[in-house]
Amino acid sequence: MAEKDSDKNPESMTIIAFSGDLDKLWPTVILSSTAAANGMDVTVFFTFWGLFPLVKDDVRITGHDAMTKMLAGMNAPGMKKAKLSKMEMGGMGHWMMRKVAKKNNLLPPEDLFVMCQDMGVNMWPCQMTMDLLGIKPEQMIDGLGEPAGAATALARMSKSQINLFI
Amino acid sequence: MAEKDSDKNPESMTIIAFSGDLDKLWPTVILSSTAAANGMDVTVFFTFWGLFPLVKDDVRITGHDAMTKMLAGMNAPGMKKAKLSKMEMGGMGHWMMRKVAKKNNLLPPEDLFVMCQDMGVNMWPCQMTMDLLGIKPEQMIDGLGEPAGAATALARMSKSQINLFI
Amino acid sequence: MAEKDSDKNPESMTIIAFSGDLDKLWPTVILSSTAAANGMDVTVFFTFWGLFPLVKDDVRITGHDAMTKMLAGMNAPGMKKAKLSKMEMGGMGHWMMRKVAKKNNLLPPEDLFVMCQDMGVNMWPCQMTMDLLGIKPEQMIDGLGEPAGAATALARMSKSQINLFI
Repeated sequence: MAEKDSDKNPESMTIIAFSGDLDKLWPTVILSSTAAANGMDVTVFFTFWGLFPLVKDDVRITGHDAMTKMLAGMNAPGMKKAKLSKMEMGGMGHWMMRKVAKKNNLLPPEDLFVMCQDMGVNMWPCQMTMDLLGIKPEQMIDGLGEPAGAATALARMSKSQINLFI
Repeated sequence: MAEKDSDKNPESMTIIAFSGDLDKLWPTVILSSTAAANGMDVTVFFTFWGLFPLVKDDVRITGHDAMTKMLAGMNAPGMKKAKLSKMEMGGMGHWMMRKVAKKNNLLPPEDLFVMCQDMGVNMWPCQMTMDLLGIKPEQMIDGLGEPAGAATALARMSKSQINLFI
Repeated sequence: MAEKDSDKNPESMTIIAFSGDLDKLWPTVILSSTAAANGMDVTVFFTFWGLFPLVKDDVRITGHDAMTKMLAGMNAPGMKKAKLSKMEMGGMGHWMMRKVAKKNNLLPPEDLFVMCQDMGVNMWPCQMTMDLLGIKPEQMIDGLGEPAGAATALARMSKSQINLFI
């Protein structure tokens, strides 16, 4: 690792947000905001499918060629368009889950995400995924950290008491 | 965190059981029972889809309105009705996997779950998910811990050497 | 645990590779190779669906009876046949993702896997899964560690600073 001081910070959490699914965005931002509210130092590393929710809502398609554009089109860039990992029921599931959440006063992931940012949670997009899927920095939402690689994420995790792959 | 003594207990494991799928119930209860048998202090925090397996087998449907009832109906409350995350092959996969397990003397998750409870594994249902999906305490199986929130789960994880999101 | 010295090695990572999906093989081997390149002691424990990618490419089917053979047939033994966890689009997704990776100079998982082995990453197949799915030692690729059980994996994790379930 780049950093050699490997003493573990007991009040630190790192999440690898891999999936990008609506139902997995919720635990990511709920755990992150709760941890930050309790004084923990939190970082979320968004990689692979997990990068799509970081795309701005008004960006309709990302990608640098036909195949990445097709992947992006199937995977719905933007947090508001995220789907469930199961129970989608022909595209209705994420809408239903949002209705259920609203009725029970659970904030949507995009609002909890902003709360996380306000509380200082580090939101790191994965540089390799950006290159791979052709997602440009200007297509992503504001307030993200510098794009990072696996080595940086690992160095962070080796100092965190809680590490989760979601 | 509520608890300030952040010294890590090297013999402690916390699992966030998110999925509720049959194939992910197995690693949850196999790791938990093995860890408990080796003297570790184990807690499983059941959240989101992971809460449905905690519903009693004779409860046919959970939920407080049409949408939560529909989600529950699609997601089959009860551990015995849990499906595979993939290879379901039109509803046959979980039945096949159970046959394969039985033939090879691997106990079903519901039996390993009871073994875990007998060995003192803490089984915590997520309070927020209960509220969200309308699952009532009396609909859930016996021997669970008090419903807990994200802050309690995080405090537990910050003291555990092994933390997994399954 | 078998080992009683529970001091944590700050430069150690253990991954439970559960899924076997192509898109989850990449983070497993990217994180493992990067960690090993930075001097960390890395172990990957391949279990359940995660075992299929360890089957040799020229083995067409594994399993000891009709049902395990059917599961293996549906789940495509061998790393080169691994599919995406989503966006498969009728079997095209994994092919597209490999094309995208190649164009962007991201090595395929099977090449990164060999790199990991060359750098000393421990690749442990799960003994119980081998028994369950009828996968024989001679059907698996070379250079793997001794088949291990949950207790061994837990002992390893209790000494690792980074533990991930992928």
